[in-house]
Amino acid sequence: MPSRHVRATMSTATLTRNTDSSQPLVDLLEERWSPRAFDPEATIDDDALDALLEAARWAPSAANLQPRRFIVGRRGTETFRAIESHLVGFNRAWAFRASALIVAIAEVATADGDARRWAEYDLGQSIAALAVQAHAEGLHVHQMGGFEVDGLRDAFGLPDRFVPVTVSAIGTVADPSVLDEQAAARETAPRTRLPLDEIVLVKE
Amino acid sequence: MPSRHVRATMSTATLTRNTDSSQPLVDLLEERWSPRAFDPEATIDDDALDALLEAARWAPSAANLQPRRFIVGRRGTETFRAIESHLVGFNRAWAFRASALIVAIAEVATADGDARRWAEYDLGQSIAALAVQAHAEGLHVHQMGGFEVDGLRDAFGLPDRFVPVTVSAIGTVADPSVLDEQAAARETAPRTRLPLDEIVLVKE
Repeated sequence: MPSRHVRATMSTATLTRNTDSSQPLVDLLEERWSPRAFDPEATIDDDALDALLEAARWAPSAANLQPRRFIVGRRGTETFRAIESHLVGFNRAWAFRASALIVAIAEVATADGDARRWAEYDLGQSIAALAVQAHAEGLHVHQMGGFEVDGLRDAFGLPDRFVPVTVSAIGTVADPSVLDEQAAARETAPRTRLPLDEIVLVKE
Repeated sequence: MPSRHVRATMSTATLTRNTDSSQPLVDLLEERWSPRAFDPEATIDDDALDALLEAARWAPSAANLQPRRFIVGRRGTETFRAIESHLVGFNRAWAFRASALIVAIAEVATADGDARRWAEYDLGQSIAALAVQAHAEGLHVHQMGGFEVDGLRDAFGLPDRFVPVTVSAIGTVADPSVLDEQAAARETAPRTRLPLDEIVLVKE
């Protein structure tokens, strides 16, 4: 596990590299992945859940407008069941074991109808921060795009200007054997990405 | 500076709290802010720049489609000048001092015209990861939405399916005295956010 000294840092950070990354990364980023095997007995306590939400809250946003909202249900609650019942397809085969489900909602317009241009982008930033905090808390996050948007909106009475964009399953990683064969196979597949020079169009 | 023990963590993380956050957060998140006062002499070396881009590369995305591209210019290059010349208004008063400017581009459709529903959201996630890595490298990031989108697209020959969403100024923090009075005043203003119970619509 190669690592290098962090230059002039103001914070404590450990850099690691277990992928084909050309540089070691902050371990909270590098070790992050999206499991499906969650421990169906594990719970998330109030402090940890609030820490995740505070991380999302303190993420940056365009003009600090913070165009993002969240619906949070812990396993065993009506809110969890309402969210879980609107997941589709393969997600229903595993997400029910999560300790919590969080709906990430973009405020795409103000109550007066003014567009919030960066709502989805800024929502993505906030869930990325939540995932960093989750990893520090010993938790993992698996985001899903596969859910019934209109059904979820109706279930929680969301106005049109609030758009559910993702649902995140959050919990404690379990052995892949809790999953069926198809899901277990995905669980142990290596993480891959496009080459850096394919996503960086120009670098000078 | 209160802190608490991190539960069952797999990574090293220091939690701190200097805001009104109800919970201490990972310091790389908590200490992050968006300065305008950058050191006009500071440079960013190849390894650090690549580490930032690798952090963006390894961020999650819907179905691992990675609908994000980047244009990177270091101060003193033609690419930097081309990006900087398309910033608008107040941003032009300070962003020229950054060590690098990075255009974050959403791939909103494939070459075949299929929509990438989560392109902007996933782009936001990648820049959030880049900012965490930057902070670990002793750098700061200030994202801007104020730039001429079409002009920037033309300058780099981007097809319509590639949408520039933000430009990030990245560099080393300098004393606010490098700024004019208006910008210096903003620099020292306290960071604020909506209350947690305003952004969390339901929590159970």
